[in-house]
Amino acid sequence: QQADTARQASAAAPAASKKEWFEAVSIRGYMQVRYNRLLETNAQLKCEQCDRSWGANGGFSFRRIRLIVFGQLHPRVYFYLQPDFASTPSGSSTGQFAQVRDAYFDLGLNATSTWRVRLGQSKVPYGFENMQSSQQRLPLDRNDALNSAVANERDLGAFVYWAPAAIRKRLAMLVSEGLKGSGDYGVLGFGVFNGQAANRSELNNGQHVVARLSYPLQVGRQIIEPGLQAYTGQYTLGAEQLSARVKARPDLTYPDQRAAATFVLYPQPFGILAEYNLGRGPEFNASTDSIETRRLHGGYATLSYRARVGQQQFYPFVRGQYYQGGKKHERDARSYSVRELEVGTEWQPLKFFELVAMYTWSARRFEDFQTQGNRQRGSLLRLQAQLNF
Amino acid sequence: QQADTARQASAAAPAASKKEWFEAVSIRGYMQVRYNRLLETNAQLKCEQCDRSWGANGGFSFRRIRLIVFGQLHPRVYFYLQPDFASTPSGSSTGQFAQVRDAYFDLGLNATSTWRVRLGQSKVPYGFENMQSSQQRLPLDRNDALNSAVANERDLGAFVYWAPAAIRKRLAMLVSEGLKGSGDYGVLGFGVFNGQAANRSELNNGQHVVARLSYPLQVGRQIIEPGLQAYTGQYTLGAEQLSARVKARPDLTYPDQRAAATFVLYPQPFGILAEYNLGRGPEFNASTDSIETRRLHGGYATLSYRARVGQQQFYPFVRGQYYQGGKKHERDARSYSVRELEVGTEWQPLKFFELVAMYTWSARRFEDFQTQGNRQRGSLLRLQAQLNF
Amino acid sequence: QQADTARQASAAAPAASKKEWFEAVSIRGYMQVRYNRLLETNAQLKCEQCDRSWGANGGFSFRRIRLIVFGQLHPRVYFYLQPDFASTPSGSSTGQFAQVRDAYFDLGLNATSTWRVRLGQSKVPYGFENMQSSQQRLPLDRNDALNSAVANERDLGAFVYWAPAAIRKRLAMLVSEGLKGSGDYGVLGFGVFNGQAANRSELNNGQHVVARLSYPLQVGRQIIEPGLQAYTGQYTLGAEQLSARVKARPDLTYPDQRAAATFVLYPQPFGILAEYNLGRGPEFNASTDSIETRRLHGGYATLSYRARVGQQQFYPFVRGQYYQGGKKHERDARSYSVRELEVGTEWQPLKFFELVAMYTWSARRFEDFQTQGNRQRGSLLRLQAQLNF
Repeated sequence: QQADTARQASAAAPAASKKEWFEAVSIRGYMQVRYNRLLETNAQLKCEQCDRSWGANGGFSFRRIRLIVFGQLHPRVYFYLQPDFASTPSGSSTGQFAQVRDAYFDLGLNATSTWRVRLGQSKVPYGFENMQSSQQRLPLDRNDALNSAVANERDLGAFVYWAPAAIRKRLAMLVSEGLKGSGDYGVLGFGVFNGQAANRSELNNGQHVVARLSYPLQVGRQIIEPGLQAYTGQYTLGAEQLSARVKARPDLTYPDQRAAATFVLYPQPFGILAEYNLGRGPEFNASTDSIETRRLHGGYATLSYRARVGQQQFYPFVRGQYYQGGKKHERDARSYSVRELEVGTEWQPLKFFELVAMYTWSARRFEDFQTQGNRQRGSLLRLQAQLNF
Repeated sequence: QQADTARQASAAAPAASKKEWFEAVSIRGYMQVRYNRLLETNAQLKCEQCDRSWGANGGFSFRRIRLIVFGQLHPRVYFYLQPDFASTPSGSSTGQFAQVRDAYFDLGLNATSTWRVRLGQSKVPYGFENMQSSQQRLPLDRNDALNSAVANERDLGAFVYWAPAAIRKRLAMLVSEGLKGSGDYGVLGFGVFNGQAANRSELNNGQHVVARLSYPLQVGRQIIEPGLQAYTGQYTLGAEQLSARVKARPDLTYPDQRAAATFVLYPQPFGILAEYNLGRGPEFNASTDSIETRRLHGGYATLSYRARVGQQQFYPFVRGQYYQGGKKHERDARSYSVRELEVGTEWQPLKFFELVAMYTWSARRFEDFQTQGNRQRGSLLRLQAQLNF
Repeated sequence: QQADTARQASAAAPAASKKEWFEAVSIRGYMQVRYNRLLETNAQLKCEQCDRSWGANGGFSFRRIRLIVFGQLHPRVYFYLQPDFASTPSGSSTGQFAQVRDAYFDLGLNATSTWRVRLGQSKVPYGFENMQSSQQRLPLDRNDALNSAVANERDLGAFVYWAPAAIRKRLAMLVSEGLKGSGDYGVLGFGVFNGQAANRSELNNGQHVVARLSYPLQVGRQIIEPGLQAYTGQYTLGAEQLSARVKARPDLTYPDQRAAATFVLYPQPFGILAEYNLGRGPEFNASTDSIETRRLHGGYATLSYRARVGQQQFYPFVRGQYYQGGKKHERDARSYSVRELEVGTEWQPLKFFELVAMYTWSARRFEDFQTQGNRQRGSLLRLQAQLNF
């Protein structure tokens, strides 16, 4: 029976290369279920950017429910569409709606695609831990210092990446072999993007610009990857993120500039991941009740070990982090001082299932117009079960 | 051409068992289109929990648009992700967004998975009709008495199920053979969950607890399934569900406890499904303008017949139901008295398509702070076309 | 290992025809990334219905991110589910949520399905350019004159289509062969639908009715398709789309009636597409501050040329359009006068990727209660990269 709409007919076109649709397009995903209330010492200790289910009235929660549709359609054309099903539209009291994380396509600029341009919403090449998938990362949440640069790690724009073919293979191997790589964002990356972060409309007439240089070096049996990255742009606060009487610039627009250094030693079996960044951006100042342009700085170091016991894998780790500065995506560009130490283990009994248990000691000051003087200290046990399909 | 991101590379890992992705992961779904305005005698007769397109200004509507991604990844690992595409974020005037119904994975606790734990958002094992898929159920909507226990039937938590292998096969057969089974929620089920129902964040520090015992017994050529279930917990009303001047407890938190009995005779060819529950929970009291903890009780009985005419199937049915109590998920924990009789038929000319026509006589009192004294009586013809893929 | 829920078991049923799920169900899609700020002469020139990223504070944007799940399940049963991942719930400050565009199924009324009924949300058969997929259309946005009839081109209801088998093949070929067809909406179409447009609930007790007649005629080596269509109904403005002090009818309900004529010459290699419509509906009147029933009229003509250079295709085009009337879906049924000329080219180097560059000269009056006297003129370069999978 002849299929019967334009859309069906046009479906025939992409399939004309004799490939079946399920050979050209693949689907995979993962989900993370968490519980953060065991051994909790302070129910007021919270972290909006990390995980909204910390502390008082938290319970079981989904941190991520991801479904990924992707495919190498042609030697020079690749696409990647990843909605998250654990997202809530602002203003809604019910959640778990599907919202885009990635939606991009890569076009090879030369026959071997060592140069390629990526169009759409994708990760901004700023920070190794930002680019590393949450499916791969050991600590449950990204560090405050670099993740505060780009909420949800992504933005909408055009990015150019370059890497030699051999390095592209190595970058892929660093993920596929369980070495917790970042994925392939090239040796050299350069991009132009809106700058308001994922799924938010542009609010000013200027674009952000980012550049990154990073190289995975073989040193004996080890692989290290030093990297540098920086971005600059103008960030405009959304009217809906301001407290009623906070003072701010009339156009709500502030400089937003950062630079970061990265060092990675991949875990064979002992691993190090360390990053530090500094810059400036909007930050709430409690002494003036206003949002001002202020300096920010901070970083973290994660030590890890990879142990294989038969088919099972264990990755014990410890991370210390520090951050001093504003978070432009939060209410009134909330001001933070963060010191945190985490000790935990990821256990993979099967490639389909992982369990992370992690103990966190944290001291956090987080102040906006409505929470001036808010300093919280405490510790908690955090648990995550992850399903990979 | 080497695929080029971390996520692609990690995709390779789950596929390493030599299975293609489309062998490990399957997709199916269904959609329901309704029209409820024929032979309508009272346009003010409505039922928020049943179907929002009853009565005045109703028209064609989708009740459900489901897409299910699922797979048995390993003898001990199964996952199930089911968004509904007929959902509206609270506060939005446009609808048909994708929102999670189920998102869970099962881990076999022993080699044969007769014991398994289910993590994520899934159906709470409370009530046979609640667990039975809407794709299977004969009456268009679930009964008020037991469905008011858990809006959307689901919650986020951890559940343990046990059933012998032979019974698991029987439970699967009761669905696959057209006998309108509930699916496999074990013989014994036990769970801990947030208690605010699907897609709503926890609002208090206590978890709900549920237990269920149910056994499908072969009696001659018939199968019957008696069952018992109960849950207890604290339910916290959301601030957005309260009328401006209604009185309520300061912490908006109320006991939420129910117990129910179930009896099923599977339709070979004559079927019975009867359930009754009682308990207590929040309910609006018009005489005090306040939300109080009050008793609730009610149940239903459905009689059905299964007729096969060639490839076609017919399921004529009649259901009577009764409910007296509050609905904690609705405005001001709206107070209800419901008596309803329904007569209808499901017709399946093909496995891909079903049509239900059903005539409903209903008497409903539904009162919140804004609708005190609201009693409606009437009847209407209800039509549903369902596509299964 | 036996799969373990009702839903799994019932999945077995549709698969029982020996077909694997991926043979019965297919997935495809496309995405469009835009940038509209180059050579812009007037940042206040905007077009809500066309593309919200025109003008001041626009940046990179997604116009569409589509994923389509569809299948011919049986000679007489076809389904089509198409969410868009670039949608924003009203009131949310974050976007790119998944919202349904199409969700329908076709049931063949005779063995050859030359007569079929389509149930669910689908395109209203009113206007060739409205029915033509955005994946196929040359100008980046649809014309104001006919597209203002049905926002998002779709509504929820029941439609009957008739076409002889040979014409159904021709309609499919007009898409698959790159001739920019509309898809198969039959030679004769008739429908009943809510009338509030896609993803909006019915707001009154009357249904809209539409009829269409269109025939693709072979004339020598050319194919032409003349067509006629008309609809009538009552449209009710949503309370949320009214300015605070605008005057309107007490029930917010207005007649909504249009008729249109279409002429198509498919591009072998020179193409013409011309449509004109007139009718009446709600429109804001600045001289009375009120929303009144007023006449509307307008149309457009697109001239195109199809050039093949090896595997590559080029479609240069020019479109002129005119519209005078209200837009019922916008604030206060905003009043418009539109004159616009567009010149551009679509370039398809591969079937997976298309680039459109288009220069637009526009003069637009768009007035609601808050923007009285708003007339904007200007020109801009518009760019779109499209990925097809």
